[in-house]
Amino acid sequence: MVTRSKIEESVLEQIRPTQQERDHIWGIAKKLQQAVADSGRAQAMVVGSIARHTWVRGDRDLDVFLLFDPSLSREALETEGLGLARSIASAFTKTYGEKYAEHPYISAIIDDVEVDLVPCYAVESAGLIQSAVDRTPFHTRYITEKITGLIDDVLLLKRFTKSGGIYGSDQMTEGFSGYLCELLVLHYGGFIPLLNAAAEWKPQMVINHENHDTKHFTEPLVMVDPVDPNRNVAAAVSLDQMVAFVELARGYTEEPSMHFFELSEDMSITREELSRLLAERGTSLFSITFPTPPYIQEVIVPQLKRSVSAIVEHLERNGFVVHHAHYVMQPEHCLFLFELLVADLPKIRTHAGPPLWNRLNAEKFREKHIVSSLPGPFIKNGRYEMEVLREFTHARDMLASESLLQVSLGKHVRQSLLNGWQVAEGAGCWNAEFEPFIAAFFWRGSPLIRVRRKILDL
Amino acid sequence: MVTRSKIEESVLEQIRPTQQERDHIWGIAKKLQQAVADSGRAQAMVVGSIARHTWVRGDRDLDVFLLFDPSLSREALETEGLGLARSIASAFTKTYGEKYAEHPYISAIIDDVEVDLVPCYAVESAGLIQSAVDRTPFHTRYITEKITGLIDDVLLLKRFTKSGGIYGSDQMTEGFSGYLCELLVLHYGGFIPLLNAAAEWKPQMVINHENHDTKHFTEPLVMVDPVDPNRNVAAAVSLDQMVAFVELARGYTEEPSMHFFELSEDMSITREELSRLLAERGTSLFSITFPTPPYIQEVIVPQLKRSVSAIVEHLERNGFVVHHAHYVMQPEHCLFLFELLVADLPKIRTHAGPPLWNRLNAEKFREKHIVSSLPGPFIKNGRYEMEVLREFTHARDMLASESLLQVSLGKHVRQSLLNGWQVAEGAGCWNAEFEPFIAAFFWRGSPLIRVRRKILDL
Repeated sequence: MVTRSKIEESVLEQIRPTQQERDHIWGIAKKLQQAVADSGRAQAMVVGSIARHTWVRGDRDLDVFLLFDPSLSREALETEGLGLARSIASAFTKTYGEKYAEHPYISAIIDDVEVDLVPCYAVESAGLIQSAVDRTPFHTRYITEKITGLIDDVLLLKRFTKSGGIYGSDQMTEGFSGYLCELLVLHYGGFIPLLNAAAEWKPQMVINHENHDTKHFTEPLVMVDPVDPNRNVAAAVSLDQMVAFVELARGYTEEPSMHFFELSEDMSITREELSRLLAERGTSLFSITFPTPPYIQEVIVPQLKRSVSAIVEHLERNGFVVHHAHYVMQPEHCLFLFELLVADLPKIRTHAGPPLWNRLNAEKFREKHIVSSLPGPFIKNGRYEMEVLREFTHARDMLASESLLQVSLGKHVRQSLLNGWQVAEGAGCWNAEFEPFIAAFFWRGSPLIRVRRKILDL
Repeated sequence: MVTRSKIEESVLEQIRPTQQERDHIWGIAKKLQQAVADSGRAQAMVVGSIARHTWVRGDRDLDVFLLFDPSLSREALETEGLGLARSIASAFTKTYGEKYAEHPYISAIIDDVEVDLVPCYAVESAGLIQSAVDRTPFHTRYITEKITGLIDDVLLLKRFTKSGGIYGSDQMTEGFSGYLCELLVLHYGGFIPLLNAAAEWKPQMVINHENHDTKHFTEPLVMVDPVDPNRNVAAAVSLDQMVAFVELARGYTEEPSMHFFELSEDMSITREELSRLLAERGTSLFSITFPTPPYIQEVIVPQLKRSVSAIVEHLERNGFVVHHAHYVMQPEHCLFLFELLVADLPKIRTHAGPPLWNRLNAEKFREKHIVSSLPGPFIKNGRYEMEVLREFTHARDMLASESLLQVSLGKHVRQSLLNGWQVAEGAGCWNAEFEPFIAAFFWRGSPLIRVRRKILDL
């Protein structure tokens, strides 16, 4: 029996599911399993954190997988599987619909619980899986078998990472999935042993719990999947979220506090506060807003990320110095936010030409530019250079111009921008839809800084 | 007999010394040689372009070397040599004084001719020279012996390079010395064959006329000294002046014109014109002025060059974007001129911290900055970063601050700045002492561009 600190005991009292909650969710699960069994067309398996008893109080995500015979064709699985899922959902609720991750499934609300009914193949071993969903039952079997005695530790880790803003392997969070949390606790034998180890992690940390033969992974954190050795369970964890975990682990092991488990509320900033803040900082803020393309977050968010880097590069190539930039996807609109140190520039710029020893190109360049009323061509470091007029002297003009469509935006973002976008400036970037995001954009503390400031009462 | 183009013939008519000029200068030379012989203490040798008959009309620089026995000590040479030089000069003129290059010598004005009387050792072979001045007699013997029949070509080349602003091996010009011009004509057998070859030169061009065994040189243009194989006669030629010569060679061989031999007048710009120009360009101009340190150009100019690069680096490290910068030394004052694209910046900047896997430094950085009211520390690419207040939000403040003394200025420049310096801004940078330099700062055409614009009447 592990001795818990008072802090951890008190957290566990808040986050362990109540008996009532367990009975309620498992009651629904059993009924769904029975309904699948009655259909005679597939086996039902409860997977995810409910199955592993590692869910945190208040989470209401029940995943029931419908396991079909692997001899079924892909098309037949989709048709039959979705058909069965839909008919079962309809027997319990009116609130259900089709969703799509790697494969389509049915999502339903049954008595306040969000239930996903996911068709997959009942393969014999993890080596035979045909798609990612087929792997999930193996994860559940693996964890269920080994996690006994460590469930509280998993709950603590999940809450600890959630509080730090690093829980979730989605594209916006780039953090720690539930399965990764379970494996970390399993590997190190508990929440505190994990934190003690993680405090000393460096990038390219590899954990191979089953000592599988495996390939070389390039991600900052590698957790070899015990059921599929060529898969990195931590593939979604970005370098910054990995070191944020390291930072939190150091912070907690050095000075434990309840603050490490508190969930932070959305930040807020009024339009007037934004206006004052910008005046004080002396920077120039610009936003680009456009309708969210009709695809899931996993598809769109990577495109938003790529678009923002491409636009930052485009701004800096044009001489506008970017201090900070970020992106967010909301149901209705997406937002790009750019804080610039330099938003207005003189008319002129230097245009680099060929080296003079490239005679043909040098002569073309010289004769093309000789008619200009601006200085040059002149010679610098053996090359021709020329003064030319700058295309954009104001960042706003650049952001509002068609030139934005020339940078690497990603397919669906580009598609949406083709119908136009809004550019706003200064406090005009304020928008109720994005208020918490805008507030956080200017806060920018690391996860541990948030906690340390609470501890130090700053 | 070479057939000259009409252009070249007409140039030669302007630049060949007249018989009267020859008689006059050689008259003085002979009298000085006689006086040295009469002293019985040294031999006299006329060196330089007068001796080689490669001087251009109007040049009045007569170099007479006083060759002493190499057994004389260095101190005795300086005392005796200077004593003799002084006594000879005093017999011909009242206008003379001591000067200093690598060694002291006497410079005198005799009948409108600037005469340098330079003591040196009469060594047996160039391999035995004790200092650079001992080498000069060998250059003169070498050229005098071989240059017959190519003197007009040397005159054309000297005028061609002078017109292009690339004649002179001083630190400000970084161009072609008279001796280098003579060797180039000798090697290629004439002015036109040289230009045809030079049109195809690339950096790291090596010319080894005597096919000497030699060392590896790193300069852009290498002319192995026929009398001292480990010396590069073209060592002073910068990359940009080398390619400027290549450019001019291409231009002249493609389309010969008198304009390639015209000497340009000093450029001019009034204070009002400067003011208008800056308003039109939208840039910010700053100057730094300070008393010229009491040393020769060869000592000070490299320090000015280094200082300007160091200040440009300092400006850009502080976020001020430099478009163009240059330096000039006048007898009274030196000037640094900086044209900036960005001269005013917001209060905030990003301050990079250690990577988080450097635990000790990361924790120091975090706890030091946690009390700030500015955002951070936050994590970016695995490192801590922090927003801090910028030291200088206006370039002018930075240029006027003591921080300037922290950058790598060179000894004598720093010494002068310790007594203070003037910072001016915009049209306030205009100054009669530097007018041609300021005008040229904004012109910035390559040598060939100047000619081509005249040819095209632009």
